[in-house]
Amino acid sequence: MEGRPNPHRVVVVGGGFAGLYAARELGKGGALVDVTLVDRRNHHLFQPLLYQVATGALSPGEIAQPLRSIFRKQHNTRVLLGEAVRIDPEARVVVLSDGGPIPYDTLIVATGAHHTYFGHDEWAPFAPGLKTIDDATEIRRRILIAFEAAEREADPELRQAWMTFVLVGGGPTGVELAGALGEIANDTLRQDFRSIRPQDAHILLVEALDRILPTYPERAAASARRQLERLGVDVRTGTRVVHIDDHVVRMETAAGPEEVRTRTVLWAAGVLAATFGRTVAAATGAETDRNGRIRVGEDLTIPGHPEIFVLGDAAVQPWLPGRPVPGVAQGGIQPGTWAGKAILHRLRGQPVPPFRFSNRGDVAVIGRLSGVTDIPWLGPLGRQSGFVAWMLWLGIHIVYLIGFANRIVVSVRWAWSFLTRGRSTRLITGHPLLPPIEDPEPPA
Amino acid sequence: MEGRPNPHRVVVVGGGFAGLYAARELGKGGALVDVTLVDRRNHHLFQPLLYQVATGALSPGEIAQPLRSIFRKQHNTRVLLGEAVRIDPEARVVVLSDGGPIPYDTLIVATGAHHTYFGHDEWAPFAPGLKTIDDATEIRRRILIAFEAAEREADPELRQAWMTFVLVGGGPTGVELAGALGEIANDTLRQDFRSIRPQDAHILLVEALDRILPTYPERAAASARRQLERLGVDVRTGTRVVHIDDHVVRMETAAGPEEVRTRTVLWAAGVLAATFGRTVAAATGAETDRNGRIRVGEDLTIPGHPEIFVLGDAAVQPWLPGRPVPGVAQGGIQPGTWAGKAILHRLRGQPVPPFRFSNRGDVAVIGRLSGVTDIPWLGPLGRQSGFVAWMLWLGIHIVYLIGFANRIVVSVRWAWSFLTRGRSTRLITGHPLLPPIEDPEPPA
Repeated sequence: MEGRPNPHRVVVVGGGFAGLYAARELGKGGALVDVTLVDRRNHHLFQPLLYQVATGALSPGEIAQPLRSIFRKQHNTRVLLGEAVRIDPEARVVVLSDGGPIPYDTLIVATGAHHTYFGHDEWAPFAPGLKTIDDATEIRRRILIAFEAAEREADPELRQAWMTFVLVGGGPTGVELAGALGEIANDTLRQDFRSIRPQDAHILLVEALDRILPTYPERAAASARRQLERLGVDVRTGTRVVHIDDHVVRMETAAGPEEVRTRTVLWAAGVLAATFGRTVAAATGAETDRNGRIRVGEDLTIPGHPEIFVLGDAAVQPWLPGRPVPGVAQGGIQPGTWAGKAILHRLRGQPVPPFRFSNRGDVAVIGRLSGVTDIPWLGPLGRQSGFVAWMLWLGIHIVYLIGFANRIVVSVRWAWSFLTRGRSTRLITGHPLLPPIEDPEPPA
Repeated sequence: MEGRPNPHRVVVVGGGFAGLYAARELGKGGALVDVTLVDRRNHHLFQPLLYQVATGALSPGEIAQPLRSIFRKQHNTRVLLGEAVRIDPEARVVVLSDGGPIPYDTLIVATGAHHTYFGHDEWAPFAPGLKTIDDATEIRRRILIAFEAAEREADPELRQAWMTFVLVGGGPTGVELAGALGEIANDTLRQDFRSIRPQDAHILLVEALDRILPTYPERAAASARRQLERLGVDVRTGTRVVHIDDHVVRMETAAGPEEVRTRTVLWAAGVLAATFGRTVAAATGAETDRNGRIRVGEDLTIPGHPEIFVLGDAAVQPWLPGRPVPGVAQGGIQPGTWAGKAILHRLRGQPVPPFRFSNRGDVAVIGRLSGVTDIPWLGPLGRQSGFVAWMLWLGIHIVYLIGFANRIVVSVRWAWSFLTRGRSTRLITGHPLLPPIEDPEPPA
């Protein structure tokens, strides 16, 4: 087909918020672009609700949507299931783990970040983090198994260890998990057991800084703390975790060391750019922060590489002086949409204004009927806590959920949970059986 | 509390249809009985819809309900997560894998059955069966991965192997899986890929007998076959599978041997009583059929052991001469309810009439808008096929689903799938990545 211009090839690596919204925007370019979206998973995951899967309120299929069905009618876009492992920025080629190189004219790196154990990878088996659906079903399994084991355990000390839950990290994920656990213990399971009282569960939220929700205004964080404490959560700020194993968590506080016997530790701390993002940084010589995230310019590309965009959690995206775009859903949605537009503008020879992040604010929910918000553009109205915050949170999450059926199904589940105080997807899958009840002493 | 009679201890092993309905009925006995329900899983699974999870139409949480929440308000009942491994019929005690003996006055064995490979256990890794939620998500993973791999494969022969699906067993599970696969290939994925045409998938349904749906009337089976063929399913009756590995299925037909290259084989044949059922048979000397199912009398107990009921798929329950109660949902629901009532009648000194199975009929759905029914008590009206069968099937399944929220959520999903021809829970979880594309030749 000589004489006809080839479409501009855009490769998008990662189908999270940033990659998804970028690819969607590029769909408007029609024959101008040829988009390839590569992801290791076949689905887009609505990460803000993942903790609800981990705590049995929603089923995995209700917060995820197959990428192929999202892009079914976007004819200039092709979805590939695969893992990007290498990049050659000179040849402009991305290589997948299991096959051929994919050439690009423009590359969008949107591979996100995962949690890190700050050099203590040996803690990983005892303290799973929450990033994928498999993580969420594993955490759900551990929480439910803990109550089951407590019900079967005769020794009061061992039983208390099963009923002790330690959450490490006081950011939004840790706070929402702690709130959900508090609700499970106080409401959901209240009548389910015959030997234990789930209300006796001991839920610790441990944060090294001197406050929870460090990105929220002071007042919102203090309100969240009060709401958590009302749910029976033991909030420990200024407390550093120094050891985790199958039976014990050791912490350092201002008052000295402390030890808690527990069988269930959940990890909600630490951010590290995903491997491919760090590979791109190495190959292009891009500057990164200490979490491996690439520092991009106001056009969201790597300085010296205008053909490589890095978006969302894989990047340090400029916003206010000394404060980059936060790692929330909007921090992927807005840059994704903007980058898609920018590529089409460039191809059409139109000017591209710099990226400006518009802070839509933060909302966190804490158990039943309560939460905190910080929505600057609503003025004083944007600073809500309790019931109003909870209602706002519900509305915002339903609107952004991908897939119309999911929106209805999640609404039904929430309405039903609200009326019955139930969580109907409390399924133990994977390894259904209790671990054998054995001697709890760690080897000396 | 001397002077006050101790409640009669009933231990129910298994929370499927038979065990669940028995325990529910026993709830009406109040302080007369003390019920312990033991299951290896923490949830009751609505097995008839499991193939819809395997084919991405429903999410696991939508067809399962935690046993604890079902029995939350039934105060004479206790749920234990555990695996029954031994029985001492003299001491009247059941032993769990991880702990103390549980004494019983009456025992209900409702541990069901699973598939068997007729002595070819080496086929298991290549041809998973469908019994648990984990089986269903594994089958879903394999089906979806096959299409993804085909999209990536350049060699036409290898691509065709990825797009060939062999289902072994022409009973209701095999037929419903084949219908769902036909629908996935022809409707759901029609527009999702760019290199392959999902309609080119080759779906084989292999049955050793000379007809599918052997428990249905001849006419219904013939209609089901026509409906499957209309969906493009290649129905092979009178065909025996003699070899399965990672790349090939070999079959014996009247016309001689045949070989099919495939990467996806699903197993829907063979019934074997679960281990605990066979343990009970050995310990009590009960007679079994060749599938290990215990032959019970008209009171559904083991002859000589009126205190041991065996129900559902774990038993051969008498019905018509030469024809026991079929292995369908009603074959567990009715005996379960009856046994619960019988135990309460006995305790109250009331007479117990023999168990009579009332045939509610059979319904199978075949893809979108079609199916077959055989409902004897509706007379000629009960023999439907096509759209009417499909509507009946929907209604019946919604009514029997446990959990009100699940009923609404499943209705929404079905309505939405119907309108959009979509299957929104097509998630690949577990091992997300494709297997490396390697040489397909089996070692010589």
